[in-house]
Amino acid sequence: MKIRVGAVGYGNLGRGMEYAIAQTPDMELRCIVTRREPSGVKPATDGVEVLHIGDIRRLAGEVDVMVLCGGSATDLPAQTPEFAKLFNVVDSFDTHAKIPEHFKNVDGAAKSGGHTAIISAGWDPGLFSVNRMVSEAVLPAGGSYTFWGKGVSQGHSDAIRRIEGVADARQYTVPVQSALEAVRGGQNPEIDTRQKHTRECFVVAKEGADLSRIEREIITMPDYFADYHTSVRFISAEELAKDHSGMPHGGFVIRGGKTGRGNENSQIIEYGLKLDSNPEFTAGVLTVCARAACRLNAEGVTGCKTMFDIPPAYFSAESGDELRKRYL
Amino acid sequence: MKIRVGAVGYGNLGRGMEYAIAQTPDMELRCIVTRREPSGVKPATDGVEVLHIGDIRRLAGEVDVMVLCGGSATDLPAQTPEFAKLFNVVDSFDTHAKIPEHFKNVDGAAKSGGHTAIISAGWDPGLFSVNRMVSEAVLPAGGSYTFWGKGVSQGHSDAIRRIEGVADARQYTVPVQSALEAVRGGQNPEIDTRQKHTRECFVVAKEGADLSRIEREIITMPDYFADYHTSVRFISAEELAKDHSGMPHGGFVIRGGKTGRGNENSQIIEYGLKLDSNPEFTAGVLTVCARAACRLNAEGVTGCKTMFDIPPAYFSAESGDELRKRYL
Repeated sequence: MKIRVGAVGYGNLGRGMEYAIAQTPDMELRCIVTRREPSGVKPATDGVEVLHIGDIRRLAGEVDVMVLCGGSATDLPAQTPEFAKLFNVVDSFDTHAKIPEHFKNVDGAAKSGGHTAIISAGWDPGLFSVNRMVSEAVLPAGGSYTFWGKGVSQGHSDAIRRIEGVADARQYTVPVQSALEAVRGGQNPEIDTRQKHTRECFVVAKEGADLSRIEREIITMPDYFADYHTSVRFISAEELAKDHSGMPHGGFVIRGGKTGRGNENSQIIEYGLKLDSNPEFTAGVLTVCARAACRLNAEGVTGCKTMFDIPPAYFSAESGDELRKRYL
Repeated sequence: MKIRVGAVGYGNLGRGMEYAIAQTPDMELRCIVTRREPSGVKPATDGVEVLHIGDIRRLAGEVDVMVLCGGSATDLPAQTPEFAKLFNVVDSFDTHAKIPEHFKNVDGAAKSGGHTAIISAGWDPGLFSVNRMVSEAVLPAGGSYTFWGKGVSQGHSDAIRRIEGVADARQYTVPVQSALEAVRGGQNPEIDTRQKHTRECFVVAKEGADLSRIEREIITMPDYFADYHTSVRFISAEELAKDHSGMPHGGFVIRGGKTGRGNENSQIIEYGLKLDSNPEFTAGVLTVCARAACRLNAEGVTGCKTMFDIPPAYFSAESGDELRKRYL
């Protein structure tokens, strides 16, 4: 019997879930749960029910795991604990500083409902977190580095759009190549986020807007741009639509460790992602976590988990025998 | 209380264990178990007992986990099942084709003794295996590629040394850069191991030996070299000792996946290692598996496991709270 998955939300991540589940023979997308008027939501897959979020309780017993595809600012802090009482759930909550609090809320709710919740799944937090942690355990002496990009930062793009005279904007976070090479070379340089990344801004200005003022406002914006090497290029709305409509992202987690007599040997672990579509990749990770949540729950494990707590075998549909034969 | 570790064997891997444990505050190397005359083995660490392998039973109750640092050809197939009856054990058994059989033997032995065994730990099999498996689960549509090197292949070096007229030799496996770039570019080329690697041989000839015959014998050697692009360079014994005495290795596991509508998007996951010392890095992985074996055993989990079965959190000495705060 297939794992019956529900997706709450049908934005980029929800659509990514739909494509990801279509690639997994052991799972089916049973329904999409939305805040919108259900008749206005048209899934790409035949036979997928669309339900209003107010009716979600109806799905108890009909869905094995609910994947929450909303945002971390307001959706997930409320939805994940609420729905963990009713279903096994998976979310991609990514407000790093608030993860401990979110974990606690979800843990209590999931346990009270006898369900399994996996939070903060995706690539960062998620696969990057696991690599940071395991690499540091394997190589306790050394330095750890996370680089993001080249990729679109939604938050920074939004910040530019709020400037007067800006019609639209797209901001890319780009790793500094020389910093990346120093880290790969085992030099363990002392560098912070600002020295590791530059910010490239593509801006569509409204007609008659003062371009030099806009550029100045961007590059001096505190927190977002002021401390970074920032470049601004004004382009047409057509060019933005043509060349900058994708959602690429990625990055690198690198551990530069030292081992042996007098720490004489340099050991580098590098984990890298180069993604054409950030939400579709995140959806792939949510899919394997949905599988793991069901399996843990079937074994009687309830409460809140993160990817730190999941044996990798649980991400796969194959048996232990098969995994050892094919991948070990 | 610290985890008390024993190491069976004191070759490159055993010495690597000694250095690795010195970097972990929660573990101590309690003893080295050897086939040699114990008085002839001098550990680098003060206070480490050296015991003859015939007396290993004396250590029951005094060692929490035994790390088996012998070879996969003859040592581990016998030792791991035997010692799993007496201790929690970890090994780096790497004869890929025989892993299912080894797993079965160790599983029965470990269960009968109430112990936990983790086999085939290291980087390949080990971290590379986990990455191959998880990447394919996250991106089910696509191609998987493992490249090894640049690194020393002991088996190929030995094969050259068996040729008449060869005094010593060192063989490096080197990834083909153009193949690596094609894979990184998401092209998912159809290539086999031979197209992914070249073989560089550094050979010290005996005085008066026929160099062109040696070179011919190397590059035409079936299985080892005949189907590869192989280069042979004759050097002096001094140069071999000076420039080729290290044990570097590494490689890359790359998944080129396709996602989205009509698989329009390319998603690349790359895991790479660049190691100055292969045995010291492997020892680092064995260390975290030793920690995990003790923890699983304390929870009542017995039998044989691989890195597929271990929640990443078990590799770390830190608490779940701490891990979520620091790494997620």
